[in-house]
Amino acid sequence: MTMNAHFQFADESVWQDTADAGVRRMILGYGPDLMMVRVVFETGAVGALHHHPHRQGCYVASGVFDVTIDGVTKRLRAGDSYFVPVGDMVHGATCVEAGELIDAFTPLREDFLAAG
Amino acid sequence: MTMNAHFQFADESVWQDTADAGVRRMILGYGPDLMMVRVVFETGAVGALHHHPHRQGCYVASGVFDVTIDGVTKRLRAGDSYFVPVGDMVHGATCVEAGELIDAFTPLREDFLAAG
Repeated sequence: MTMNAHFQFADESVWQDTADAGVRRMILGYGPDLMMVRVVFETGAVGALHHHPHRQGCYVASGVFDVTIDGVTKRLRAGDSYFVPVGDMVHGATCVEAGELIDAFTPLREDFLAAG
Repeated sequence: MTMNAHFQFADESVWQDTADAGVRRMILGYGPDLMMVRVVFETGAVGALHHHPHRQGCYVASGVFDVTIDGVTKRLRAGDSYFVPVGDMVHGATCVEAGELIDAFTPLREDFLAAG
């Protein structure tokens, strides 16, 4: 399945555990070349440094995060955002205060669908 | 310019007025094939029905919106989302209670950069 409905409702959606303790995700809308994902972190949880061929944008909806991209770390708060402009650029996030990230990927993260 | 920095800070960013009264946007991260945008609506503001070749995902960060995609309207609240999976599908949003949408587009909305 490479496309879901036009509308996604939080109360009909499921949380997935991730490989990172204290980090859960909910898949939002997606098609072949775009996917949005909501990711909730507990305080102290670490989204380990990783890389993938997808390009990624991320909006900090709440909380405080120390985000590392390509070896540079910055502290981001609600309203801030980050961007991974090319594939396989190493990035990760440490949650300083519990919060939520809204990720966008191009293309689709087929691995997230498989994990569901 | 088809790429900005890895990190975007809200207090260093600017709001753009849009063609729709009561609707402002802030460009977040972008590269050639992905752009994230924060859009704030006043109560009653209307993001008029429109279409563009870009595919789009959208997360409702706060507020209540009546969103129409391809002639079907649903009421969305914080945590809900919508998806426009193919280019030039007509969509729009009416803000029922003031709030904020987080948009993701593929590819880049060059028209938004030109408007800045």
